[in-house]
Formats: sequence, structure tokens, C-alpha cells
Amino acid sequence: MARSTSGESVLERVVRIFEAFDTETPSITVTELARRAGLPPATASRLVGELVGYGWLRRDADRRVRIGVRMWELAVRASPTLGLREAAMPYMEDLHAVVGHHVQLGVLHHREVLYVDRLSAPGAVRNVSRFGGRMPLHATSLGLVLLAHGPIELQESILAGPLRAFTERTPSDPRTLRVLLGEIRHTGYAYCDGFIDDLSTAVAAPLRGRGDHVVAALSVIVPRDGSARSTLPALLAAARGISRTLQSPGFTATG
Amino acid sequence: MARSTSGESVLERVVRIFEAFDTETPSITVTELARRAGLPPATASRLVGELVGYGWLRRDADRRVRIGVRMWELAVRASPTLGLREAAMPYMEDLHAVVGHHVQLGVLHHREVLYVDRLSAPGAVRNVSRFGGRMPLHATSLGLVLLAHGPIELQESILAGPLRAFTERTPSDPRTLRVLLGEIRHTGYAYCDGFIDDLSTAVAAPLRGRGDHVVAALSVIVPRDGSARSTLPALLAAARGISRTLQSPGFTATG
Repeated sequence: MARSTSGESVLERVVRIFEAFDTETPSITVTELARRAGLPPATASRLVGELVGYGWLRRDADRRVRIGVRMWELAVRASPTLGLREAAMPYMEDLHAVVGHHVQLGVLHHREVLYVDRLSAPGAVRNVSRFGGRMPLHATSLGLVLLAHGPIELQESILAGPLRAFTERTPSDPRTLRVLLGEIRHTGYAYCDGFIDDLSTAVAAPLRGRGDHVVAALSVIVPRDGSARSTLPALLAAARGISRTLQSPGFTATG
Repeated sequence: MARSTSGESVLERVVRIFEAFDTETPSITVTELARRAGLPPATASRLVGELVGYGWLRRDADRRVRIGVRMWELAVRASPTLGLREAAMPYMEDLHAVVGHHVQLGVLHHREVLYVDRLSAPGAVRNVSRFGGRMPLHATSLGLVLLAHGPIELQESILAGPLRAFTERTPSDPRTLRVLLGEIRHTGYAYCDGFIDDLSTAVAAPLRGRGDHVVAALSVIVPRDGSARSTLPALLAAARGISRTLQSPGFTATG
């Protein structure tokens, strides 16, 4: 791999450029991009120019830079989660038609839950998570399900903290969290009443692929008015349907 | 930019590696990847190794390579179409609840329609397009709407052909296509009865952003049984709703 005088590969610099973007920063000046990526402005400018040429970045009319349509297209058309999302979507839609508010699909990735799909109704209760965004495992219903069924080393590592308390109900004490994880494995779902904010309750269930391994989780977020319990049968039925699809012989895509 | 002895940049090689993947080839051996990307196997292997390290590619248990979750995450969380999709989703869901089958969202990109979102019902009529996939402008309802409202140079270039006939009803004659584009501008929608296959009919309407520019299109695909006309009022109402959102002062994301 070609390396700059700093010993860093070109690819490493390109990765840092892309990591400068996030949900809150969909577009950025080259100067700010260079600062965030820790690159000399001339280097950032040259790499941005080349990436714009390939359609991986694009320049707005005001010269701000954003992710290009080509990059998006390459990433989604062979997406590692496309098979999971296609298997889940019909069930997610039916669930969403019945429950309203938010229905979400998430996978475990690098000690967090990554939101890979979501359906939201107009006027639904507030939801702090984002499509393509991440949240901590211990505080979200999807995260707790994924953690409860995740590797024991991950559980111990998360239990060792820190465990941020988003509200006074977030399981931020290791002992409480350990008990909760056991309950989730036992009951088959996570019930999270105001763990992230005071307005919403989330419930989540595991999605199982081949060999009954938990490969993802499905959640419903509703207002914190006691209605969440009534969504459980529909959630659990949808999770069973998706799991059956993921385990069917015809299903080849990975989770 | 560092260049190999062939004068090609590292970045150019990385782009070629990612372009080897598509909907039909979500995973691939390094040997096949090298062949598709036109790279020496050793070079492909080294670049794949580095990309796996960054999470942009991943290796399956059987050593096949696929797009990594990190690449997907970077591309979607600052996606150029995220604003459009978020504006459209509530209307798409309502439309889908009423119409069933497929509801799709597409944008014009490099002389084709790029499918950026879609809702499909279980058991819906066959639909050849794919999420993140592309189709020709002259043969699809989304494409015809985007072409009818696209730059005149693009129209002339597409009219100059070739115009592939998917069925005997595909507008593959330049004169027919020119008349059709005028009708679409006049009526405000495209009605495509069996243009792509014998089983489905598609209708599409333009989505207008600031300054009333057409920035995307919305379509419904239903069985070719005469029911498509009845979906038009719901489609046109949804397109108006999305356009109003795109034109609202609070809407900042680009299409």
C-alpha cells in the first residue's frame, strides 16, 4: 500500500475523510473536513477532488462536501443487511400498521446497536435513534435484547461500565443490568419503560437465524402511557415470522 | 495521490474493488474480485486485507468477501437521499397501506433511475427493480417522469437511442417516446401499462422541491388488471404532500 511520508496509507486517509460525516453533519466545508480528519488542507482538498470525480463525494452549489450518490448506491445494493431487511420488511409493515409510532430493526455492531431499518408514523412519539445511527446496548430495548443473547465476554465488558443513565430508570447499575439481561433471556423480550427519555416505552424481541442464533432484534416504540404491553403479542408474532424466514432453506443472505 | 507503476491511483483501485459488487453478487472470492476489478491477485488481496481492517469489507466464514457494515453505516447515515426519504416515508406508508403491492421512490442519476426507497407487500406483483438498483429511464414510470422533467439535452440523448423494448408495449420508438414525454408533462403523471413485463402496470408522479424543480418521483406498481387507474388519486395526493414537505422552509436536506 502506498504510504505518505507520515507512514499513513492513502486508504487510511480516505477512511478518515468519510468518518468526518455523520447524521448531524451531512455536509461540511473542506477546511472543516481536513480538521476533523486530521489532514493537511492541501491533502484533504486533493483527496476530496478525486473522490468527487468518482461520485463518492459530491460538492454542493455552496462548495460544501457531502456523501455522493455513487457511494450510497454501492453500499446499499450489496448491503450486508439487505437480506435481513428484505426478510423483515413485510412483517415490520404489518406490525407498524397495527401499532403505529415506530418499528425498528437493529443489529449488534462494535459494542452498540446499529439501526438498520425503521418505520415511523407522522406524529409518532419522539425517538432519539436514527436510521444508520447507533445507541448504547444497555439503555435501548434492541440493545438489551442483543446484549442478553450476545457473547458472554461482551456482557462482562459492558457490565464493567461505564453505564450512562439517560433517565433515572436507565439500568445503569451493573447488578440491575445483570438481572435484567437474565429476565430478557427468560421472557423472550425486553420491556424498557422510559430508559432513554420520559416520553416513550420500547419493547424488543430477538430475531433468530440458522442454528437459532440471535442475529438481530425488532422493537416497537410507543408513548409511555401503559400501552406498550398490549403491543407485545403483535411484536412477538412478527419476530417469529421474521425468524422463520431467516431460517428457511431459501434464505441465503447473511444478517 | 500515490500511484502504482501503472500510473493508477490507489483510490482508483479501491473504487474498482467496490464496483465489483452488485445486487446479484453480494459476496465474491478474492480471485473473482481481482478479475472483475482488473487487478493483479496480490494487489487485490492486499487492498481487501486493508479494507477488511477498516470494516469497509468483511470476510465470511467461507473466505468470500462482502461489503462491510461500516461502509454501509457511513454511506447511509449521511446519505444524500436521507432527507428525501424521510420526507417521503410517511406518505409512502399511507399510500402503501391503501394500494398494497409496491410503492417506490426514485431519483435521476447518470442517465438512469436510481431506486432509493421502496415498500413492498408480501405476495405483491413481480417487480424487477431493486432497492439501490437502477433501471432505464424510457421504460419505467419513475424514469419517464424524471426524463419528462429532466434537462432537454438528456431527453435528446435518450431519444437518440438505443431504446430497449422489454415488451411490445415499451416506448422504444423515439417518436412514441417524445409524444409520451409531452403527455406526462401535460397530465402530471406517467401511466405505464406493461412497459417492463406483461404482469404489472406502474404509475408515477413527480416530486417537486424548491422552485418547483422535479427532484424525484414516486410510483405505484400493481397487477396489470386495470386497477392502476384507481390508484392515481392516492398517488397524486401523496406526491403533493411530499412536495409540500420538500418545499417547506424547515426542510434543509437535499434531494
